[in-house]
Formats: sequence, structure tokens, C-alpha cells
Amino acid sequence: MTNGLFLSFEGIDGSGKSTQARQLAAALRDLGRDVVLTREPGGSPGAEEIRALVLQGEPDRWSAETEILLFTAARRDHLERTIQPALARGAVVICDRFADSTRVYQGLSRGDLRDTVDQLHSLMIGREPDITVLIDMDPEVGLSRALSRKGSEERFEGFGADLQKAMRKGFLALAAAAPDRFRTIDGTGTAAEVAARLHARLPELFGPAQV
Amino acid sequence: MTNGLFLSFEGIDGSGKSTQARQLAAALRDLGRDVVLTREPGGSPGAEEIRALVLQGEPDRWSAETEILLFTAARRDHLERTIQPALARGAVVICDRFADSTRVYQGLSRGDLRDTVDQLHSLMIGREPDITVLIDMDPEVGLSRALSRKGSEERFEGFGADLQKAMRKGFLALAAAAPDRFRTIDGTGTAAEVAARLHARLPELFGPAQV
Ligand SMILES: Nc1ncnc2c1ncn2[C@@H]1O[C@H](COP(=O)(O)OP(=O)(O)O)[C@@H](O)[C@H]1O
Ligand SMILES: Nc1ncnc2c1ncn2[C@@H]1O[C@H](COP(=O)(O)OP(=O)(O)O)[C@@H](O)[C@H]1O
Ligand SMILES: [Mg+2]
Ligand SMILES: [Mg+2]
Repeated sequence: MTNGLFLSFEGIDGSGKSTQARQLAAALRDLGRDVVLTREPGGSPGAEEIRALVLQGEPDRWSAETEILLFTAARRDHLERTIQPALARGAVVICDRFADSTRVYQGLSRGDLRDTVDQLHSLMIGREPDITVLIDMDPEVGLSRALSRKGSEERFEGFGADLQKAMRKGFLALAAAAPDRFRTIDGTGTAAEVAARLHARLPELFGPAQV
Repeated sequence: MTNGLFLSFEGIDGSGKSTQARQLAAALRDLGRDVVLTREPGGSPGAEEIRALVLQGEPDRWSAETEILLFTAARRDHLERTIQPALARGAVVICDRFADSTRVYQGLSRGDLRDTVDQLHSLMIGREPDITVLIDMDPEVGLSRALSRKGSEERFEGFGADLQKAMRKGFLALAAAAPDRFRTIDGTGTAAEVAARLHARLPELFGPAQV
């Protein structure tokens, strides 16, 4: 494979994206693969600076429209400086969140901007991951996991089961609309159980499933 | 007039945009008008921060595409936070450069992105100034004025008459394509002479020309 493979992980908070992305990267490196593990927003020096600019300061510091432009600028930089060079040398790129997260978050906060988000994506980004792993699970479980992360309590203030449910629905709708790209995985059970399910769904990377 | 009036100044470096914008603002304030004098890139606290992020660091730090996205984010913020509120209360907004500068600069450095720049503008900005004053002049004169500005010598290193000529051509082409919006003014002579020419071309603001 000389063109690499671009995978993203998506799912609600606490669903295990970061955990599974790390474990998959380690498993593929054990098989001798060249792996680049990255994340959004951020993932390149320029994109991390844009991320910091967006996230610091008052919540209403940027309008939804300006924020979308800044995140798209960060994504463009991440794509050009981190993802595309890695793919060009044949690496597997594993990205913790990508454009689907923007679609779901914006869809919930400003549903009227959904078309704008899509047009901006096709104009300035113009590609999707080859495979998107959606880790699907009961929002209550994800929320309790996320809340148990040390020091993260205040991030979830005001987050509730309703928002998590709406996000889950958003991700499932995206998966239904792009069945060739998505692999939806049940995120319940231990991290090792989820990893085993995931590996079975990635014959491109691990060969046919052993079950 | 309850909806204000949005004017931009465009032209090559040293053509006198900043000088004329300041003088026009002062003249209108003398007439009792509410005037907001602003500039791009920048013009609002958020946009100034984005401007600093774009302009600091190595020249190849951002690709042309990322830079366009960042400048569009800055313009969106400037429009929402500075320009639109001023227009809504009936002020005259005078902006030193606006989207036409992006069009001309990008057209020269990456002509292949011209369509992208236009699409991004209609998607995320969606408006032009009511009136754009193009200060037109011999690039040699503009360059010598610009070079005589204290401390600005190094900014113009590598700038030459050829680039200034190409920019002039770019601005004139934009003016020809949007004759209703543009007022093209001869920029030669003293600042007072240019100002007199300008005022004669702005009956919306000063009443019919006296000349
Ligand atoms: N399968 C699992 N079972 C229990 N806890 C898990 C599991 N996977 C991850 N965790 C823990 O739950 C929290 C959220 O996991 P994380 O991978 O950070 O989720 P995400 O990146 O989707 O928000 C972390 O503290 C993590 O260690
Ligand atoms: N009509 C004029 N004649 C001579 N010098 C001028 C005139 N207008 C402006 N200048 C001077 O030329 C330089 C460039 O003018 P400026 O207004 O900053 O141009 P711009 O903003 O278009 O780059 C400044 O030093 C300014 O004081
Ligand atoms: Mg995570
Ligand atoms: Mg100036």
C-alpha cells in the first residue's frame, strides 16, 4: 500500500475514541506499520495555535460562523501538514475526531448552518477519511466514563443526557448516510472487548476477522 | 439615513488609502456624521488577533488556502462585531481595504484560487461595501511614497514596479466589472487635491459636486 489509509474515530464524549485510537495505533505498530496518531481540532503546529485561539476566552467571543471558518482553517493546515504527507509515504493515519464531529456539534447548536458547513467542507477540505469508526453506545455510560476522567468535571457542567442522546443520533444519521465509509462498533464492555470488535471490522488492516 | 453607508478604500501601496480614509472621516465628522473608521485585515479585537496569527512567523507557515480561511474568519468577525452594528445605528463605515484587496493579492500570488476566494466570500461574507473608492495612480509614484514612509523600507524589499503594475491592473479590472459600486479617483497631486476629487464623487455624502 503506497497511498496509506486515513481512519477517523467518532462518537459521543466518553465513548472511548481516544482509548481505541491509541490501542489501534499500538497494535498496527506491533505489526510493523507506519502509523500517525493525530487528533482534531489541532494535529499540526498551526492547527494547534488556531485551536488555542478558538478555545480561549469568553464563550461568545466568536460567532458560530467565525468559529467554523477557524476550525476549517485548522483542518486545512492539519490535512496539508500532517495527514497528506503521512498518507503520501504510505502510513496509516488515525485521527481522533474529524469533520463528522463538526457536523454533529454544529448541527445541534446551529442546525441552520449545516448546509454552510457542508459547502465549506467541499470547497476547502474536499476529502473524507477512507474509514470512519463510530463508537456507538448508551449516552449514560459514555457520560459516566467521561465524568470519571480526572479533572474533567467542570468541562461537562451543563452537559446532560439529552445533549449526549442528540449527539448519538447525529452520529448514527451520518453513518446511515455514508455506509461505505462508516464502521459502527458497539462501545460497551472493556476496552479490550471493544478493540477486538474493532479489529474484526478492519480486514483492510488486520486481515479477515477471526471472530 | 437609518441604515448607514459602508465605504471601502482600495488601491496599490502608497496610493493614499489610509490618508484619504482619515481625511474623509474627519470631514464627515465635521458635518456631524457618526463615522467609524476601520481597516483590514483586522478591525475588531478578534480579527486583530487572527491578523497577528497570520502575519507572525515564517512566510510559508500557512498555505495560501489556510491563509484565505483565516482572513475570511477575520473579515467575518470584523463584519459582525464592528461594521454591521455601526451600519445598524446609521453610521458611515469607512474601511481601509476590504475584500477587493484579497481578490487582487490572491489573484497575483495564486490565480488558480480566484474562484475559491469568490465562493468563500459569497458563502461566509455575502456582502460588498456600498461604495468602493479606488485610488488609482502610477505605481512608480505610489512606490516612492510608500518607500518614504519611515521604517517601512524592509516591508517593500522585493516589491517592484512590476508587482505594483500588476496590482493596479487587478484593481482596475475589479472596478470595470462592478461600475455601480466603484468610484475610481486619480490619486496624483496633493492630499487636499485628491480629497477634493473624492468629495465631488460622493454626492451621497456631501451633496452634488460643486466643481
Ligand atoms: N471500554 C471502556 N470501559 C471503561 N472505561 C473506558 C473504556 N474505554 C475508555 N474508558 C475510559 O473512559 C474515559 C473516556 O474514554 P476516552 O477514550 O477518553 O473517550 P473519548 O475520547 O471518546 O471521550 C477514559 O477515562 C477512559 O480511560
Ligand atoms: N497626495 C499625496 N501626496 C504626497 N504624499 C502622500 C499623499 N497621500 C499620502 N501621502 C503619503 O504617502 C505615504 C503613503 O500614503 P498612505 O495613505 O499610507 O497610502 P496607502 O494607505 O494607500 O498605502 C504616506 O507617507 C502619506 O503621508
Ligand atoms: Mg477523547
Ligand atoms: Mg495604508
